[in-house]
Amino acid sequence: MGKYGDEGNQLIFKILKRGEHEKTGEADLALRYDLTVPLARVVAQYQNELPKFFKRYQIQPVWRADRPARGRFREFYQCDVDVMGSRSMVVEAEICAAASEVLSKLGFNDFTIRLNHRLVLTGLLEQAGVERDKHADALIALDKMDKAGPEGVAHELGQRGIVDESAVKLMRFFEGVAGAQRAANLVDLNGAETRSAFNADLLGRLVEFMGPHEAGAKGVDELRQILQYCHASGVAAQIRLDPTLARGLAYYTGAIMEINVKDLPGSLGGGGRYDNLVGMFAGQDVPACGFSLGLERIIVVMTEREMFPAKLVSTSADIMVSVWNSESIVDSIALASELRNAGLRVDLYPEPDKVGKQFKYASEHGIPFVAVVGDDESARGEVGIKDLRTGEQQTVKRAAVADAVTAAVKSGN
Amino acid sequence: MGKYGDEGNQLIFKILKRGEHEKTGEADLALRYDLTVPLARVVAQYQNELPKFFKRYQIQPVWRADRPARGRFREFYQCDVDVMGSRSMVVEAEICAAASEVLSKLGFNDFTIRLNHRLVLTGLLEQAGVERDKHADALIALDKMDKAGPEGVAHELGQRGIVDESAVKLMRFFEGVAGAQRAANLVDLNGAETRSAFNADLLGRLVEFMGPHEAGAKGVDELRQILQYCHASGVAAQIRLDPTLARGLAYYTGAIMEINVKDLPGSLGGGGRYDNLVGMFAGQDVPACGFSLGLERIIVVMTEREMFPAKLVSTSADIMVSVWNSESIVDSIALASELRNAGLRVDLYPEPDKVGKQFKYASEHGIPFVAVVGDDESARGEVGIKDLRTGEQQTVKRAAVADAVTAAVKSGN
Repeated sequence: MGKYGDEGNQLIFKILKRGEHEKTGEADLALRYDLTVPLARVVAQYQNELPKFFKRYQIQPVWRADRPARGRFREFYQCDVDVMGSRSMVVEAEICAAASEVLSKLGFNDFTIRLNHRLVLTGLLEQAGVERDKHADALIALDKMDKAGPEGVAHELGQRGIVDESAVKLMRFFEGVAGAQRAANLVDLNGAETRSAFNADLLGRLVEFMGPHEAGAKGVDELRQILQYCHASGVAAQIRLDPTLARGLAYYTGAIMEINVKDLPGSLGGGGRYDNLVGMFAGQDVPACGFSLGLERIIVVMTEREMFPAKLVSTSADIMVSVWNSESIVDSIALASELRNAGLRVDLYPEPDKVGKQFKYASEHGIPFVAVVGDDESARGEVGIKDLRTGEQQTVKRAAVADAVTAAVKSGN
Repeated sequence: MGKYGDEGNQLIFKILKRGEHEKTGEADLALRYDLTVPLARVVAQYQNELPKFFKRYQIQPVWRADRPARGRFREFYQCDVDVMGSRSMVVEAEICAAASEVLSKLGFNDFTIRLNHRLVLTGLLEQAGVERDKHADALIALDKMDKAGPEGVAHELGQRGIVDESAVKLMRFFEGVAGAQRAANLVDLNGAETRSAFNADLLGRLVEFMGPHEAGAKGVDELRQILQYCHASGVAAQIRLDPTLARGLAYYTGAIMEINVKDLPGSLGGGGRYDNLVGMFAGQDVPACGFSLGLERIIVVMTEREMFPAKLVSTSADIMVSVWNSESIVDSIALASELRNAGLRVDLYPEPDKVGKQFKYASEHGIPFVAVVGDDESARGEVGIKDLRTGEQQTVKRAAVADAVTAAVKSGN
């Protein structure tokens, strides 16, 4: 509690204390809300035993008492990479490269890493004259730029009590950004050069807007460095500066990023720098930066786009071993074992049944071959193999079955 | 609730309802206690859309509000295989073969699959004249045969109110079994033939004790079939009949099994037949049988026995790319990317620092090579590679670095 912000506090699942529970309503445990705060606690506790630069990945389920939607579940897996111990922007670049490599290897080539900076957000709001206690409101309004457009955002800024003068300043800046973005879109936003030019243009606009605001200028400078480093690691083409990106979690202190694809309203993942979180446990700060990919969201998009290799999607066995009668069950079991030891995916019909029914079962479940160990075959040390796709049946010496099926499976698929 | 028995009901973690929670103490969710009851619910709901013989594996965390101990955690991963839809003992044999194959592939060769049957337990108790309402007590006492020995069990049977005559009958049977086991141990319990002879002898004793008890005799007959089928699939040598095995879960109806190794007091996994569980959700029964391996327990034993391949245990990178100064950071990032694309495990020192300090850091963390991209090397299009194990440093053309390090890593390990 108290690490994720107000929304997070409400979305934590709390577990009743054992024993007394229903009576007192006392909760002494909770479900992991993310992998970052637990990491910070571990680093705080074992700081002296860990390397100065501690890098770790972690894949585990987390829980949020949220309303489920497409790609959003109450239980889901996060896949995190984090680097503790350095304030260098090399870390941000490494983190972006890691997330980018994972998605590329999975077959994504159209994702965007949106990049922003908490100090840039602060600088923008303060330079526009937004009062501190209205920052959160302003960020909520700005975050809707993509969906509601500049007019919608301007309206909401007013509704949320941002004074006219500040709103006008902000909107002038963001309309300029939106114009530059439209222009880039007209060329080709996904082209590396266009995007690089757009990012450079935006850095210029930010420098100008920040003027003498020190923290804001520092944020802009860090963004410039991250872009430069990402260029060196070859992921710059994926990155788009987006000064409307806010990210809800309270613990971020520096750069923040989010990965999006067009066909999902939420993000595939996100992350950022959180230099003060370990200090909340340890008293002493440890700089940190990390990225988290959402496994189920990735799976949703990959499934809808049919990106999974057919081999992974198919759950069918290579061959089904049928059962001739109750006396021959042991022969069928032994054959199934042999074929499995040879590396084949083998289904074993579990009980004696009419042979036709067994063939039909295999066929209905997409299994291409059925092995038959009847009395005659058994007596001759042979096995019948029926190819359900052609209807052909051949008789093979028992010792040759594994090789024959392996060859047929390889050629068949 | 109500599916796992009294102990299970108490060990379920309950989650407070969102919103009202602390005030009312109302729990509307709970944490998965195992993967079997949720499977039964799915099968009950989607029965008409699933194959007649539905086989699935599932690996997921489950939770129990238990006291943690070595290999026993409150959150742990179960690895389940289950087959729904057949009453044939082929299923029990297949399930034992699957669990056995997994453990063999992980490198275990000394595990025992203890096998018993709920109907055999009922038959034993009823033939001994134990009252129905004392069955649970008697099973708790019998379960301690391994630890407490026959005398301890006899004492506990008395304490738990089992009448003398019944206790004497039971103890006469179990002392006979224990004697046969001692005799087998004297020869070599792990020898396949000895174990097969022991199991055959025990089947004889059970047949004799059951006499006309129909359910008990049916249980013995099913055990005989399972042993026969396991012989065909080549796992019979791992199986030992154990009429003291009870297993706590309330839902088992037929064969029950548990896998043990000597160096862990608990089991590595267990399972059995549960023909009535789907019916508790669906109204209509679906026969079912499954096995669950406990991931953490397997990891505990494998870690203590040092069974993990060295390659898996090492978390060190193959090479660390050092950072010469703040101007050359981009060169280091680019080199690290190239080496990673070539399949190497690469650590990148995240910030400029004294070179000696960077070498020391790599050495302390078991990284064998450090790449140096200094001004001179950079100007010549070269990279320095230091082998920290020999202290030798060579200079390599940039394009040849990946191959040189890959070769060195391969020969070095």
